[in-house]
Amino acid sequence: MYLGAIEAGGTKFVCAVGDSGGNIHERVQFPTTAPEETMQKVIDFFKSYSLDAIGIGTFGPVDLNRKSQTYGYITNTPKPHWTNFNFVGTIQKYFHVPIGFDTDVNAAALGELFWGRAKGKNSCIYMTVGTGIGVGAIVEGRLVHGLLHPEMGHIVVRRHPDDTFVGSCPFHGDCLEGLASGPAIEKRWGKRGADLSEQDEVWELEAFYLGQAIAQYILVLSPEQVIIGGGVAKQSTLLPRIHRHVLNHLNGYVQHEVILKHIDHYITLPGLGDNAGICGALALAKQALGDK
Amino acid sequence: MYLGAIEAGGTKFVCAVGDSGGNIHERVQFPTTAPEETMQKVIDFFKSYSLDAIGIGTFGPVDLNRKSQTYGYITNTPKPHWTNFNFVGTIQKYFHVPIGFDTDVNAAALGELFWGRAKGKNSCIYMTVGTGIGVGAIVEGRLVHGLLHPEMGHIVVRRHPDDTFVGSCPFHGDCLEGLASGPAIEKRWGKRGADLSEQDEVWELEAFYLGQAIAQYILVLSPEQVIIGGGVAKQSTLLPRIHRHVLNHLNGYVQHEVILKHIDHYITLPGLGDNAGICGALALAKQALGDK
Repeated sequence: MYLGAIEAGGTKFVCAVGDSGGNIHERVQFPTTAPEETMQKVIDFFKSYSLDAIGIGTFGPVDLNRKSQTYGYITNTPKPHWTNFNFVGTIQKYFHVPIGFDTDVNAAALGELFWGRAKGKNSCIYMTVGTGIGVGAIVEGRLVHGLLHPEMGHIVVRRHPDDTFVGSCPFHGDCLEGLASGPAIEKRWGKRGADLSEQDEVWELEAFYLGQAIAQYILVLSPEQVIIGGGVAKQSTLLPRIHRHVLNHLNGYVQHEVILKHIDHYITLPGLGDNAGICGALALAKQALGDK
Repeated sequence: MYLGAIEAGGTKFVCAVGDSGGNIHERVQFPTTAPEETMQKVIDFFKSYSLDAIGIGTFGPVDLNRKSQTYGYITNTPKPHWTNFNFVGTIQKYFHVPIGFDTDVNAAALGELFWGRAKGKNSCIYMTVGTGIGVGAIVEGRLVHGLLHPEMGHIVVRRHPDDTFVGSCPFHGDCLEGLASGPAIEKRWGKRGADLSEQDEVWELEAFYLGQAIAQYILVLSPEQVIIGGGVAKQSTLLPRIHRHVLNHLNGYVQHEVILKHIDHYITLPGLGDNAGICGALALAKQALGDK
């Protein structure tokens, strides 16, 4: 049995064919251009396979409401040409199989639940820090949807008293994303994060904000596992600093030994590494097959 | 068919017998004293009925993990005599029926989903502002559990620049509960909330904090309905002020007409009024019967 997976990002697409064990058999990657051109490459890649289901984890915002007329669409994205693009409909025209469709971070959370660091658990969150800050969540074994989908990157954080950076979010100025995303780091310090790895104060401030935000997610969702992916998380000193700040913010309130004694196992990098996104799309395909 | 319901509060217990339509047939209420005495009254009330299930919505913290040895216990509560009390086990000794057990606010959220303002929806949050601030949540039709249960009343909020009150939370000082609970209002203004109803500045500040917190819950959980219960919510000017502050904080980011155009229907008082808690316990009983 073959499953198709699409990891649709703002700058690149990854497509893969894999199986229900989370194994990738073949993959391809190309830049995200106009929808017609990009989708043609997706279709060309998949058409030689007999697929049983396809999963799509995509940039957004997206319409996930199955009762909505625009279910399966990318909605009001600032990305040129992709506004109101019927993603599911376009794929369905060529492949008459069940299609799983969700945000990129929700997909990655599901991938980690099926085959990664949250394996065997009923809940987790997957946070990615890059151009934006996105967080996917699973509660009681199910991806969190609702009115729309979570937009956790935009929560309010309390500012560090020494931080005078105005923030980079066009909607909220100094929300979490406005203070701690890749572009926020670059604007505040005048260099890209990758070129600042030796500067302790950069990562201490970053951990102050990310740790504070993760403490809030823990208070609201009580996830059994917290996973941090994306480029920024690879800074080697960041994760231990985040552990410290999360404990600081919770201040002993959440009495569970996983937090009090094993925070380094509780908040981790993805078990699937850089494959969290594409395996997540594969997990959506597997789930779509089960839902049928 | 009869269902039993227990709303266990820190100061009073309400017990009721009702049906699966959410109707209460008989109810009784008594002060919360030592567990033995209190539970005897519960048992005496229920024993003349042939009950099919019992639901318990209780003060906490509680252990909701069914795999845990202390499932069904009230755990490390500061309330004298109730620490490590085996609530489910005590009831089960007398009544051999399915028992639903959850936090008081999760119960109220379920009651509102079954029979109140969130009827027909898949998700909602129920917030209560009183001695503490508690929030229950339902996502994809299921009560939110995880590592423990949500403790949303303790999230961080950004302080109002004119507010110099130090905060009343023993764990976090000026978290949401420390700034906006009933005791926080009383300490800040020197009077109980009920005696401050004419003072606009009290409710404007309260709405600033509650609105900010609700905006965070919307970003994290994307609930289809937000319900505010408890004594403080009854201040007549509070709810419209909260509507304004939620819109301010989201600043157009969550593009859904329910928020942008109908916020007064989106964030409301409980449909079940003061019965939200006891009907919630009834809903837990109904759910326990279905889970069997």
